[in-house]
Amino acid sequence: MNKIAIVGTGQTKFSKENDDVEKILFESANTCIQSTKNCNSDDIEGVIVSTNNNSKYLGAILSETMGIQPKISHSIEHLCSSGTNAIISAYAYISAGLSDLILISGAESAINPGQILEWDKSRGDLEHPIYWGSMLTKLHKTKFQTTEEELAIVSAKNHKHAMDNPLAYSNEPRTVSEVMNSKQITDDLRILDCSRSCSGSSSILIASEEKAKNISEQPIWITGIGQKTTSASFTKNILEGIKSTRTAAESAYKMANIEPKSIDVAEVHDAFSVCELMAISELGIVTDDKSGEFVRDLFNTENRMINPRGGLIGAGHPLGATGISQTIEITHQLQGKSEKRQIPNIETGLIHNMSAAGTSSSVMVLKN
Amino acid sequence: MNKIAIVGTGQTKFSKENDDVEKILFESANTCIQSTKNCNSDDIEGVIVSTNNNSKYLGAILSETMGIQPKISHSIEHLCSSGTNAIISAYAYISAGLSDLILISGAESAINPGQILEWDKSRGDLEHPIYWGSMLTKLHKTKFQTTEEELAIVSAKNHKHAMDNPLAYSNEPRTVSEVMNSKQITDDLRILDCSRSCSGSSSILIASEEKAKNISEQPIWITGIGQKTTSASFTKNILEGIKSTRTAAESAYKMANIEPKSIDVAEVHDAFSVCELMAISELGIVTDDKSGEFVRDLFNTENRMINPRGGLIGAGHPLGATGISQTIEITHQLQGKSEKRQIPNIETGLIHNMSAAGTSSSVMVLKN
Repeated sequence: MNKIAIVGTGQTKFSKENDDVEKILFESANTCIQSTKNCNSDDIEGVIVSTNNNSKYLGAILSETMGIQPKISHSIEHLCSSGTNAIISAYAYISAGLSDLILISGAESAINPGQILEWDKSRGDLEHPIYWGSMLTKLHKTKFQTTEEELAIVSAKNHKHAMDNPLAYSNEPRTVSEVMNSKQITDDLRILDCSRSCSGSSSILIASEEKAKNISEQPIWITGIGQKTTSASFTKNILEGIKSTRTAAESAYKMANIEPKSIDVAEVHDAFSVCELMAISELGIVTDDKSGEFVRDLFNTENRMINPRGGLIGAGHPLGATGISQTIEITHQLQGKSEKRQIPNIETGLIHNMSAAGTSSSVMVLKN
Repeated sequence: MNKIAIVGTGQTKFSKENDDVEKILFESANTCIQSTKNCNSDDIEGVIVSTNNNSKYLGAILSETMGIQPKISHSIEHLCSSGTNAIISAYAYISAGLSDLILISGAESAINPGQILEWDKSRGDLEHPIYWGSMLTKLHKTKFQTTEEELAIVSAKNHKHAMDNPLAYSNEPRTVSEVMNSKQITDDLRILDCSRSCSGSSSILIASEEKAKNISEQPIWITGIGQKTTSASFTKNILEGIKSTRTAAESAYKMANIEPKSIDVAEVHDAFSVCELMAISELGIVTDDKSGEFVRDLFNTENRMINPRGGLIGAGHPLGATGISQTIEITHQLQGKSEKRQIPNIETGLIHNMSAAGTSSSVMVLKN
């Protein structure tokens, strides 16, 4: 297996604006290229766009606006995990020898068409993700005696982390009691338990080993990859946990030749508070019945191991950009560049990105 | 470089219906799997959908309807060359060792959102592809003394080939004189010079060398790949020919270690009659000023070397499926399975698929 690294990163401020995706794609891609030592447009052989936006030909459009004439160029869509799908696809092109340097840029405007999966008739009239978020929450409370306070801690913790992330959507601290008293939107969800769809763009450059050493003083290596799609419709999954995450994690750990206990920092897909608890269990970081307690300990000890940038709940969730921003955070953490939110002495990080009630998941392991 | 092969194919009849893409994706994918020796759903590790349709999560939806739980799954869009982009992406995953067997399925309904690139303001009010088709035609006539009859021959030839393709959109013979007397739609285009957007789906299975030998008695090997995007807007390209095709072809020939004269059969992207003439020149099959004469000779001698299934003009152009159907045709030709339209004694075939006035191109070389 060839060695492949992340060599550049760029992100816009996440916000509630309805930005043109073309404009913000350019903005994050430009920041990304400027973050490198000496990369110019001519070096870039691939431009992959990750989005749910209905605009067509965005790979070529971003290339033209950036002055790039790539070999490889297209858009990738897989709902909320479009971003990691695009990164892994770029990894494949480089590993296959079809390219040495690829720009991956994700973007979404606040109103985007990826929020409701109309095809999924198993949801009945309850199409919006809050309904599956609510059902998973009820189930978690019942099976593992998870308390409302533990769920609220996830949100309070991630809002707190986001305070130190200048590009996050949220910049307001939220106490556990504020979360627990926020507007109730279903039997088991309050508004502050939910990540918010928003506008934003993030870009990453990945390179072959030789190219990486020319472009970056601190390349971060992609050492593990796992992916799994178990279904598209929600009802096939609900009673079994997030099987796609478990399978994807097993593959990623095997490829990286590590155990879950090696993970020093993880960005996990907290679409709703309960998703963070489920994710850290399925990833093998903690057992199911201890996930609430685990997150409470992190919160009480100000340990930022899980979702240091604020997760989806604190940082916002521009679907096509999310997986890329998660990867940028882990890259910066491993480079020691995370400023106020830096976790000391770390070597191994993980990204967990999923779609549509966990019917598919991507997991990546990074090392410095 | 690992050896990678095409091991299964399936296609629906192309038509003017507004089929659900989910339905026709299933239809072609099912035919594709049934075309193999002994492949079942459990063997398939990737499901990549190629489309311009705005439905989301189609990779997961197709997987669920087919009973597949893949590792890799997402949609790819790059306008008219989405299909070859998806195949080449799958090639990369297999070559990288991330998968051994991937299903690539393309589909479009007749009314699809990929026909007009609204972003491209360089087209002014003349957004529809017929305007760039018309401008390229005028330019070809002026630069190379191409006659209206030579242009009409492209269409008459491809309509004739489509008569022997039971899955083609068109099943009417069109004489040169019929084409020349068909409805004039711009200064330089008549209705029968144009390919028609239509409904249709096509699927292909590609596999690693070891897997290929288990699944297919006649695997067809992908030996050359080239891709290039030069711009997104039309006006950057018009006076220079289709540079993206020339560059992509050079890469594909280099990778396959062949010269253009080795090509025995080619599917080229005849969005308009003039595109076939331009494509065979840029691919190095003939010089620019001889392309009209070359196609006339093919027509007069009933030589099916170029666009044996009828091209886009005869077979129809369901955007996301087109590149896959072109690849299926070359596969069948190299397997000797093309029935009435079989070209005898062939070893090397080429696929040329492009987008948006030739601003990007993919070229693949196949061998038996």
